[in-house]
Amino acid sequence: MKRKTFGPVTSQQVAQVAGVSQSAVSRTFTPGASISPATREKVLKAARELGYRPNAIARSLNTARSRIVGVVMSYFDNQFYPQVLEALAQRLDELNYHLLLFVGDRDGNVDRIFDQIMQYRVDGIVLASVSLSVELSEECVAAGIPVVLFNRSEENATASSVNTDNEAAARQIAGFLLAGEHQRFAYVAGLSDSSVNVARQKGFIETLERHGIENVRVVQGDYDAKKTAKAARELFSAPQPPDAIFAANDHMALTVMDIARFEFGLRIPEDLSVIGYDDTGPSGWPSYALTSASQPVDAMVSATIALLMKQIESENIEPEQLVVPGVLVVRHSARRPRSGIIEKDGLMLFQPQEVE
Amino acid sequence: MKRKTFGPVTSQQVAQVAGVSQSAVSRTFTPGASISPATREKVLKAARELGYRPNAIARSLNTARSRIVGVVMSYFDNQFYPQVLEALAQRLDELNYHLLLFVGDRDGNVDRIFDQIMQYRVDGIVLASVSLSVELSEECVAAGIPVVLFNRSEENATASSVNTDNEAAARQIAGFLLAGEHQRFAYVAGLSDSSVNVARQKGFIETLERHGIENVRVVQGDYDAKKTAKAARELFSAPQPPDAIFAANDHMALTVMDIARFEFGLRIPEDLSVIGYDDTGPSGWPSYALTSASQPVDAMVSATIALLMKQIESENIEPEQLVVPGVLVVRHSARRPRSGIIEKDGLMLFQPQEVE
Repeated sequence: MKRKTFGPVTSQQVAQVAGVSQSAVSRTFTPGASISPATREKVLKAARELGYRPNAIARSLNTARSRIVGVVMSYFDNQFYPQVLEALAQRLDELNYHLLLFVGDRDGNVDRIFDQIMQYRVDGIVLASVSLSVELSEECVAAGIPVVLFNRSEENATASSVNTDNEAAARQIAGFLLAGEHQRFAYVAGLSDSSVNVARQKGFIETLERHGIENVRVVQGDYDAKKTAKAARELFSAPQPPDAIFAANDHMALTVMDIARFEFGLRIPEDLSVIGYDDTGPSGWPSYALTSASQPVDAMVSATIALLMKQIESENIEPEQLVVPGVLVVRHSARRPRSGIIEKDGLMLFQPQEVE
Repeated sequence: MKRKTFGPVTSQQVAQVAGVSQSAVSRTFTPGASISPATREKVLKAARELGYRPNAIARSLNTARSRIVGVVMSYFDNQFYPQVLEALAQRLDELNYHLLLFVGDRDGNVDRIFDQIMQYRVDGIVLASVSLSVELSEECVAAGIPVVLFNRSEENATASSVNTDNEAAARQIAGFLLAGEHQRFAYVAGLSDSSVNVARQKGFIETLERHGIENVRVVQGDYDAKKTAKAARELFSAPQPPDAIFAANDHMALTVMDIARFEFGLRIPEDLSVIGYDDTGPSGWPSYALTSASQPVDAMVSATIALLMKQIESENIEPEQLVVPGVLVVRHSARRPRSGIIEKDGLMLFQPQEVE
């Protein structure tokens, strides 16, 4: 029951049993290396017999590739992120890369764990729902490590990013609620310095202002269930409570719906319309049937991985800002406009003539 | 913008700037190694100035420790598992270990990805919601790598495991529903070969049988939302639909509730009682208010990590089967018995006199 140092079988032993050179064993287990099918077969047979496995860690020192991608993620209680994580891990696995997971702080600051990530000489980094300081971003560039911000971007854009068009989607949500003839609007904000919150708030408020609505109530949910519940109670206790709420993500929108229904006896959508952002799992559950701007997980993850791989392989990490198209998925949590709703692939979508 | 091979700064350069030996630099960055505070301070100062970071991968070859724990997980759509993953990653991070994530197949078979895990010379493995074949389990023992099954166990017990007392909790659920004077019982099963499903089904059915109830309807949800929806429709379409359902996990219980309410117009708990297992996030949301047997994530993760660390450090991997206590959290999805409900720490719990 004693631990053995890196297992008993060496590549030399495999080479001996297979009757090939040690280099042939090494090339058999190096993705993309040149090796004849016959030799490869001999090596694999001997490896199977002996129970040999190549040492990925030792290999990474030779190839200067760890085949590890570091992923930093927060908000595991928001079902959007576990879905993203599962897709990232599966996609990387298909490419024979692996995922080293770090949990980011709720305040979105990644500096504390950055040293840890860098120590593992990762080939790339995905930062989901966290931001990178300018210093760290520049340090990655200097070290030649590609970084992709997922569902975040930074103003100076030294790192790459993958997002939906947050501002445009928020404009569409404002248009949907205006077309539904709502009167009193509120916005439940995420963390005020998160890039997606800034863009969603801007698109929503500016569109309403262009239609003469100035007094949009803004409360802070900060992506946190408890703060969101408190913010919702504030909204519904006001003398003139809103009849239309856009919450900066679904996770907060679901909390707003629960507070409205179970603490204030409001009917949705008769008394109150609620719209979210993400179109994540629970939003489709019939108890909520949330109308929501979609963030297509598979497309966003595909774009992220494709970008990372391109930068790893080309050794060129010129930052790129990718925008993945989303749609406004119409369910039953918000009063529907008389026109502009179409059906597509079993979903109801909002595709109006230009609102602006 | 070219990738540099493992960054420009070496431990030699740090040693030179700090005026110390290279071994002193190495010991500064090795957890637990002996180093004088003054020397350590000199090294850290030089390292900061130069932007040096130790190479965790090279170190792992010297120490035969990668400080990586491999985690295999499935069912990211079941909120229980993301919560477990977040807790595992945070706890490992605190101990200066890191988490290499693998997504298991839905059928629970881990053999396909096992080669990948072993290549990274992980110091330990956590298998959450997946099972290990006897062969692989024995291979881990032979290689001296501790394995903990999380929320699973295996009959021959070559690997360690951490679970709640599934059978006892299921007996309690049967007792709760019997005390609530229900008449027609059904069980929505998880994958029929998963250890927790076997234990939950056994505890539930045997307790009912001991009370003279023989015709318990069993349908397969297989931990899958679509299959569960189908199974629920089957139950509610029957001439004598159940008035009490135990679903083998919360994720399936929520689906059962949605189908009952929105497709069959059933009132919960007036027409139908539903109980789940996990007591995970959405179960506490007021739209569901699910009565559920708890699996305390923090306690289970703490037990898992403590066991792994003990085995890694002692190099003794004698398997242990740990059982973490849970409670039956009483909310509003099931009719309550007249007695046996107590309040504790703001939760309602079921703690009857012995039912048996």
